[in-house]
This record gives sequence, C-alpha cells and structure tokens, in this order.
Amino acid sequence: MSTTNWGDTREVTAPADFHVHLRDGALSRLVTPHVHKGGFYLAYVMPNLVPPITTTRMAMEYQKKLRENSGSTKVEFLMTLYLSDDLYPSDVKNWKAAGIIGVKSYPRGVTTNSDQGIESYDKYDELFKEMEAHSIVLNLHGEIPSDHSKNTCVLNAEERFLPVLADLAEKYPKLRIVLEHATTEAAVKAVMACGDNVACTITAHHLTLTVDDWAGQSFHFCKPVAKFPSDRLALQEAIKSGNKKFFLGSDSAPHPSLSKSTATPTSGCAAGVYTSPILLPLVAHLLDSFGAIDRLADFTSNFGRAFYQIPLASHAPKVVVQKVQGVTVQAEYSSEEKAVVPFWASRSIDWQIVNVEE
Amino acid sequence: MSTTNWGDTREVTAPADFHVHLRDGALSRLVTPHVHKGGFYLAYVMPNLVPPITTTRMAMEYQKKLRENSGSTKVEFLMTLYLSDDLYPSDVKNWKAAGIIGVKSYPRGVTTNSDQGIESYDKYDELFKEMEAHSIVLNLHGEIPSDHSKNTCVLNAEERFLPVLADLAEKYPKLRIVLEHATTEAAVKAVMACGDNVACTITAHHLTLTVDDWAGQSFHFCKPVAKFPSDRLALQEAIKSGNKKFFLGSDSAPHPSLSKSTATPTSGCAAGVYTSPILLPLVAHLLDSFGAIDRLADFTSNFGRAFYQIPLASHAPKVVVQKVQGVTVQAEYSSEEKAVVPFWASRSIDWQIVNVEE
Repeated sequence: MSTTNWGDTREVTAPADFHVHLRDGALSRLVTPHVHKGGFYLAYVMPNLVPPITTTRMAMEYQKKLRENSGSTKVEFLMTLYLSDDLYPSDVKNWKAAGIIGVKSYPRGVTTNSDQGIESYDKYDELFKEMEAHSIVLNLHGEIPSDHSKNTCVLNAEERFLPVLADLAEKYPKLRIVLEHATTEAAVKAVMACGDNVACTITAHHLTLTVDDWAGQSFHFCKPVAKFPSDRLALQEAIKSGNKKFFLGSDSAPHPSLSKSTATPTSGCAAGVYTSPILLPLVAHLLDSFGAIDRLADFTSNFGRAFYQIPLASHAPKVVVQKVQGVTVQAEYSSEEKAVVPFWASRSIDWQIVNVEE
Repeated sequence: MSTTNWGDTREVTAPADFHVHLRDGALSRLVTPHVHKGGFYLAYVMPNLVPPITTTRMAMEYQKKLRENSGSTKVEFLMTLYLSDDLYPSDVKNWKAAGIIGVKSYPRGVTTNSDQGIESYDKYDELFKEMEAHSIVLNLHGEIPSDHSKNTCVLNAEERFLPVLADLAEKYPKLRIVLEHATTEAAVKAVMACGDNVACTITAHHLTLTVDDWAGQSFHFCKPVAKFPSDRLALQEAIKSGNKKFFLGSDSAPHPSLSKSTATPTSGCAAGVYTSPILLPLVAHLLDSFGAIDRLADFTSNFGRAFYQIPLASHAPKVVVQKVQGVTVQAEYSSEEKAVVPFWASRSIDWQIVNVEE
C-alpha cells in the first residue's frame, strides 16, 4: 500500500453507503441531505421506522420523502423491507419494480425458543426462495438476544449468530446475504468461509472504536458494540486485503443530541453513531491510518456495487478527497426542530472533499 | 442453603465494608453518614483524594474529618495510604500506631514499560518487606492499562494483571494482599490458587451487573467494568461456597449526579456506582437472589475481619435485616451543595434493616 503525503488526493466514483438510517419526520429532513454532504450518491436505506416499512407502498412513499428531503437529485435511495410475517412470498416478484432491493432481518423480529437464542428462519423458507429467484438481498443484523443463562451478552451476541449465517448461506446458495455491520474477528472469518453469495458491511466507526471508547462514553455507544482491539484489527485487515466481500455500510444512526448525552437511572442513552455528514473524509482518514487508502474506491463504491449488481452509470459523478491538516468536525448539526451530534464532533479529520462532480 | 420467606431475618454483627470511597469536602459530608445508614460499622477507606493520602499525618487528619462527618461515633474508619514513591520503608513501623492498615496500589501509579503493561513492583521491594514485617496489608486495584497493540482493554485488564498478583503473593508469602473488586472468573480462580496471604473483595453491584447493564447506561458504569454473565456467576459461587478469602468491599464510589448522567462528545461520564446508603439490604437481597443468604454475616463481616485481624469487640452491635416486599431505593441523596444518585435508584429491594443496636 502507498503511504500518503499532505495534499495527496483519491478519487471515488459515486460513493455508495450500503447501510444507513434516514429516519422520518423532522429528523429525516435534517439528516437526509447529509448523505450527499458526506460525499455519497447512493444510500441503502434501513426500514426500521415506527411502524416498520413492510410494504412496497410504504417503501415507495418513504423513498419519495427521502428524495424531497435530500436536496440533491443525484442521490439514489435503495429501499428495503423489514423482515416479518407481514411479507408475502407471492409479492416478491413485484418488489424489484417497486425499487425494493433487500429485506432486513432484525434480531428482535426473530427471537427466542431455539438453542441459538434465535427463532428458526424456517418459517421464511418460502419467502427466501422467492427472494433467491427474484434476486432480492437478505440483510442480517447478526446478533442473538442476550441470554445470561447461556452466557450470551452484547460481547458475544454476534459470534453466536454466525452459525445461523453459515446455515442460511448453505441452504440458499443463490440468495445474496449481507452480514451487516460486522464487529468481530469471528464474523470476518465466517464471512470469508461462506460462498460468494455472502458479503459483509463494515461501518466507519468500528474501524476505530473498541470497548474502551464506549465504556462511559455514550456518544460512542452503538449496537453491535465495538469490541476488542483484535476485532478492530480484523476489520481493518479485511479491508486492507482487498477482499471484495467487505464494503462500507455506515450504519449511520442519528439520534437527538439529548438522547445521546443523557441517561437517567432507569433509562440509558440511545444506541447509534452518526457519521453521514462526514462519511467519505472519515473513511479516507481511517483507511489512511492503517495503510489502506488505496482501497478507498473499492470499499466505498466498487465492491458494494458489484455485490448488489448496481453498476455505475457511464457518466457517474466522481468525488475527490484530499489529505489536509486538521479539518474540525462540526460540534452539532441542527434545524429548528432537531439537533444531532456527529461522530468525532469537534475532533479533527485529515481528509476532506475537494471536488464533487454534480 | 436455606430458602427464605417474607418476614425472615438475618443478623450481622458490626458489618464491615472493606473498600469504600468517602471523598472530601462537601461530597464527603453528604456521603460519610451513609456508611452507618447502610448498616455498616467499619469503613476501610480508600486514599485516592486529590492530592492522594500519602502520609500518616494526612491519613489521621482525614480520619478525623470522617469521624466528624459520620454522624455516628460507632463507625470505625480504617485508613490506607496511596502507593507511590512518597512512601518510605523506614516509616512503615510507625503506621499501625497512626491507624494505617493498608497501602493501596492503583494502576495509574504503576504503569507502562513492561511486558505486563505494569511497571515492575521491584522498586517497592523494601517497602513491601517492611509492610510484611509490620503486618500492613497491600490492596491491589488489579488491572493493567489498556494497550491496544497487545489487545489489552477494559475487558481483559483484570485477567492480565493476575500473574502479577501470583508473583507478589509468592515473593512476599507473609504480606497480606487483597485483590480489590474482582470482576472475573479468572480472578476468582487466581485468588483461590494463591496462598492464605491473598484475599479478595467483591462489590455488591458486580453480583448483579454484566456488560449488558452498562452498555449505554452510565449509572451502571464503573471500573473495573462488569463483564460476562459467567464472570458474575463465578463471583456469586465464590460467596456461596463460603470460601473465607472472599468478602465485601463495596467500592461504593459517589459522584455528583450530573457527572453520572451526562456525557459530552469529548468527555464521558464518571466511573463509579454508589451503594453505601443501601449496602446491607442490597447485599442481603442479592445473596438471597442466588441462594447465599446464609453467607450474609460471613461475607459482610466475619471473613473480612478475620483476614484483616480486626476481631469483633465483645459488645459489638448487631444489625438485623428482614425480607420484606418492595422497599423503594431513594432516587437521589442531596445536601445543599451536592447530590448523588444511588445504585438501583427508584428500584425495589426486598430486604431492609429493621433493628440496629447502637
């Protein structure tokens, strides 16, 4: 890998964030423009609103809102549905036309009553077969619920999900599956061991955080939680190695500032780290910090697009980032109604966007 | 072990807390009376004030203040010094007469530059030999500093300290050593494997918390952090087994409410859980929850006193706790100057103090 100098530049064609939370209402109006601000032209949008997005009509309405909120006509919003009994196998064939790219499985939707602490996915067999047939992606939040009688807690919840991932990948060899926001060395190895139908998103913040950072610091608390330094290293190495299975999904998750800063004895702070508005410079800074800056375009655009089969348009815009000293991250982003604190608020990032082709 | 019924009582003679932070100034005036309020007659006082307690004069002045603040003439304050280069081996022979019982070693006082991440204790060889000769106890905060290049973080900082404990115990076989606030199964095993010169304190809160509780909940954040459910179980089993090496040291650590509730992006919340004012009922509740209520007197008085060689006076006071339904923990304790939030604020405890012999 190359070493970098001040002033060095890197170019990425149409950066793509394959996992982002854009919320709804006033918060969505505040944060949706930040996708483009952060250098991105594609947002793979999570469906966990209240109520969750479970129909094509809801997804299309949500997509329309996001386009209105975006402030840029250039950002592509790819939509997902929330895995639940409300999804019907007979509908899958119509999803693609409605802009649905994937289905997201959350642990709370598939919990309890099995040795793994997770309900069997057997009930979704017909759905998954239809998804396989119609090339819809399955996105997995890969954690099992805490169960102290089995010594399961936030630290091993991901590792203990991995056999489920392996089973699904084998049972549905043509179903494309993404293990979302991997945080452990075990997950990296498991994804590598699966066939080419399995890929994995990695967030920006998990490339720098460990458990030490969120111990007592709620702004660094997210789920899955950041784990050991050795886990962080495994994520970095996966990117550095240029393995095409690993690409960016920021899991950028805005929460009102107060819900991040403040706990009461009976309720904790919100889980989530907000990276959208600084995403491409942040990723460049982090990749550069562990000698992987040359993987920037692969990690933030090429590999994800290849897995999702979303080729670049012939005149797709290019974004150039440059290594510069000390760009301070804004302390807070706010509208009249909402305020959110970005990751690394008031800290310094050594890369910035210097040119964006519109 | 017996099972308990509503109305059952247990009696403890002169409960003793062998690890407590009583602070100074206004905060000390607020919290010192809580030792007695929580049912305790002995407080083994930590020396980590600013500046730390490093001389017999400072310790005696501090002890005098604590007696004034206490509100009870019955509480015994046992004093410790802060291990540092300010302690002189030639002084050790005078410590006992000045009321000094032990010396506390903090990781920040003994950091870096060795394979263990902890500076060698070799420089204290003469001091430790004098302590051995004059029966002064060595109290160890048993963690090594985080070092991500060695995969050391808050989760394994204690386990990686344990070889140091074993070495000290072997090198100074007559030096009584206490591993403070143990949080791991590994620590329990290590203490058991050492000779009788090594004992171990266990806090109340580590008998109920795991990492899941402090993830995003700053009021449950303390150091050492609570770890896996299997670690919590090992602490419970050590008490349940009636092993005399394990006794209560609450590590009750008051912080102003705001410093617990609130983080900013650039500074986290204070580490510490405050249990003093509810300590005996809380411990009874917890021991009862895992079938160890019959160990209450051993854990909260007898075993610690035996190790420290502090026998009960012939007319030592007795405290009776009773199993009752739903005593709600106060939301906050405050004076005009300070406010602190106790552990389990607004939650319910099923044991209460019903009789205290003055």
